Amino acid sequence: MPDTLPARIGDALRAADAGLDASLERLFNLLRIPSISTQPAHAGDCRAAAQWLAGELTGLGLDASLRETAGHPIVVAHAPGGGPDDHRPHVLFYGHYDVQPVDPLSLWHSPPFEPKFEGEGDARRVVARGASDDKGQVLTFVEALRALRETGLELPVRVSLLIEGEEESGGANLPGFLADNAEELACDVALICDTDMLPGRVPAICAMLRGLVGEEVVLRAADRDLHSGMFGNAAANPIAILARILADLRDADGRVTLTGFYDGVPVIPEALRAQWATLGLDDDAAMLSPYGLSQAAGERGFSAMEQVWVRPSCEINGISGGYTGDGFKTVLPAEAMAKVSFRLVGTQDPDAIRSAFRKHVTDRLPPDVTATFHPHGGSRAVSLPLDGPWLRAALAALGEEWGHKAAVVASGGSIPVATLLLDTLGVETLLIGFARADDRIHSPNEKYDVDSFHHGIRSWIRVLAALGTVKADA
Amino acid sequence: MPDTLPARIGDALRAADAGLDASLERLFNLLRIPSISTQPAHAGDCRAAAQWLAGELTGLGLDASLRETAGHPIVVAHAPGGGPDDHRPHVLFYGHYDVQPVDPLSLWHSPPFEPKFEGEGDARRVVARGASDDKGQVLTFVEALRALRETGLELPVRVSLLIEGEEESGGANLPGFLADNAEELACDVALICDTDMLPGRVPAICAMLRGLVGEEVVLRAADRDLHSGMFGNAAANPIAILARILADLRDADGRVTLTGFYDGVPVIPEALRAQWATLGLDDDAAMLSPYGLSQAAGERGFSAMEQVWVRPSCEINGISGGYTGDGFKTVLPAEAMAKVSFRLVGTQDPDAIRSAFRKHVTDRLPPDVTATFHPHGGSRAVSLPLDGPWLRAALAALGEEWGHKAAVVASGGSIPVATLLLDTLGVETLLIGFARADDRIHSPNEKYDVDSFHHGIRSWIRVLAALGTVKADA
Repeated sequence: MPDTLPARIGDALRAADAGLDASLERLFNLLRIPSISTQPAHAGDCRAAAQWLAGELTGLGLDASLRETAGHPIVVAHAPGGGPDDHRPHVLFYGHYDVQPVDPLSLWHSPPFEPKFEGEGDARRVVARGASDDKGQVLTFVEALRALRETGLELPVRVSLLIEGEEESGGANLPGFLADNAEELACDVALICDTDMLPGRVPAICAMLRGLVGEEVVLRAADRDLHSGMFGNAAANPIAILARILADLRDADGRVTLTGFYDGVPVIPEALRAQWATLGLDDDAAMLSPYGLSQAAGERGFSAMEQVWVRPSCEINGISGGYTGDGFKTVLPAEAMAKVSFRLVGTQDPDAIRSAFRKHVTDRLPPDVTATFHPHGGSRAVSLPLDGPWLRAALAALGEEWGHKAAVVASGGSIPVATLLLDTLGVETLLIGFARADDRIHSPNEKYDVDSFHHGIRSWIRVLAALGTVKADA
Repeated sequence: MPDTLPARIGDALRAADAGLDASLERLFNLLRIPSISTQPAHAGDCRAAAQWLAGELTGLGLDASLRETAGHPIVVAHAPGGGPDDHRPHVLFYGHYDVQPVDPLSLWHSPPFEPKFEGEGDARRVVARGASDDKGQVLTFVEALRALRETGLELPVRVSLLIEGEEESGGANLPGFLADNAEELACDVALICDTDMLPGRVPAICAMLRGLVGEEVVLRAADRDLHSGMFGNAAANPIAILARILADLRDADGRVTLTGFYDGVPVIPEALRAQWATLGLDDDAAMLSPYGLSQAAGERGFSAMEQVWVRPSCEINGISGGYTGDGFKTVLPAEAMAKVSFRLVGTQDPDAIRSAFRKHVTDRLPPDVTATFHPHGGSRAVSLPLDGPWLRAALAALGEEWGHKAAVVASGGSIPVATLLLDTLGVETLLIGFARADDRIHSPNEKYDVDSFHHGIRSWIRVLAALGTVKADA
């Protein structure tokens, strides 16, 4: 048997199995640190969690350190290697050690920072704040490194880690840190472990994240509020004009009407549609019924999941104008406001869409009415090449571990760090997570299944081995 | 010369002229009473103003009394007469003795309840809170009764007065009082002196008031707010649906699209349009430019004034939904709300229009979206027959006094008491006032021109004489 990882992967998996109890004990240790990043009283706890991680990584032979920011420190660690003769692919693992606040405390069945097991067999789970989001998920990767180390072989890939402490509190310091340390953090592909599997233990890689364009528009007509009896009909009503403009944003088939809006929107590969159908993800009612809805409301011809995952959207997120309190006031208001967002896919251009929206509005303004625009962010969609080598390798590895073909999924929302890694480091991200939909992240009684943790560790062993076979310049 | 009023009207007018200084002195006495109805501390002052008026009317030979309500007292007075042999038309004069608060006091050039003259000649005016609204206007009628009394002749009409003290504070007690005393207050026509003349000393009678239907609609989709990234496109957006429904309320020509909406909307008589054109009332820019507008926004083919005075309207008075604070929140809200009002003319039916609006909404609801409606009042338009004898007689009388053909005008808003008199007593109202657009009612430095007061008194002498010639059952 050659002394290489692909040949000896069983040793690493067995080490993970044998070490599971010790791995869980280490997870409990990390969970006992109340690293609530948004609460200043817990700043010391945040630092303690960072130090704990740096200590563990140092113990695994990595060069790990705390890097100071204006907020909580960032843990950066590099496994040995690099240099001109090191041709292994270089992966950067991202996670976060901070957690959400715990209130309302009264709804917890046990203290949030005293981790405990609940349930038996397949249902056995760790209950604590951060068990899933993101301490449990982060440690799947760390414990995979430990099991790989026990084989005595060199890691199949070069590994760096970046574990921040402000993901739950705005993340204001990460962009600057990435920009300042782009050279040190340069890599071939990024890995994030902060997402879910699909129901039924189906492993999944999130390969597409929609982009976002936010716009606020204020329409103004008369120079003051008027009495709607004395002026109604004669004076322009900015609410009515805004309603028309917003109504015109979609046609009868639910398609967005902005000029050029669909430029760069890719056709959904048939293989992907087929996979989603096989997984039952084309069942609109199943997706929507938990929220009191039954039908996909948007673009005709696409399932609800497709509408959210791989089709662009236009939503009105807020609107106000005139009198909105109790009772009635016969006011004809001077202005009306709407907040509108567009979700982008493929190569849709945020700037072009912002311009098209503004033109849509100004083209529809009647005399005496003006529009003022305020931009609220803009980002392109992030997506992995669906037939790229990183994705293919990781999918195959996950499929072997879980006994089910791994799914390529998407997220309708944005994951800012993925966008940031693309924009700052120019690197694609594989979003691979083992959380479950019922993990109650951000809520009382957060949990992480022992099954997620155990097979999460094993998954990373397989994924790293698989990524090690990819030519980095492929 | 026969001893009848038409023949001896000159005597009454001369008496009014000769008594002007004494009339102004009485006006000053009433203005000194700070009868601010909305401020509990002034309840005694309101009663004092009522008592002052009852005293004056008693002095003029009327049977005057204070009638208690749950709020401020109402003055009711009847001139002698009545009975089976009294064939004179019976008029009921309505006015109010209460005034608006005076703040901001710092903007007054002189104390608001210390009336004083300002200006000379044609510009001479009385400055005080209530000088115009409505004490000055009420006293034009009282002083006309005094001048008529000095002729020694019987009044040309039977006269009753109803002068309330809660017009500026909600008027909650008037409807019940009118209903309870409908028999006592029965009359042939009502007179209200609480409106303006047109610019250039053009007398005017307001003969048309628009009605009102108020509706609030709340649309609900999902059973909670959703993340617009995670659900945008797939989940129904109640703001977008509301925008479509509201946009559909008018067509491209500005006409309201509700089924049957224009049933009962009268054609504007050509004579009226011609009169308004002669008076320059068809100048849209002149009407709108004080408010930063230049063009009539509503129904194509009508001037701004026509749109407000004699055409029905649909206005959105308020709208809200989703996130409307600073910044941006990618929420897909569970509900959205709008407050909508319709202004009615002619015989448009409030109930039918409310039903048509609700049908308009429910017809446009997509699956999963529900609408809840809350009614906010409904009243028919009030209008005088434009060729009726009361209006003809009063117009002629005003034209003689002011040396300018009197105009028939309208109000786009409702005047609740006119609606109340129609609904409770079944009687039409002539709205005849002598206020000017620059009287600053409800504002600091309110004034009433001595010209308005003097010729107002003379106007009522002529109007009462003219109404006396109308057959009450005509």
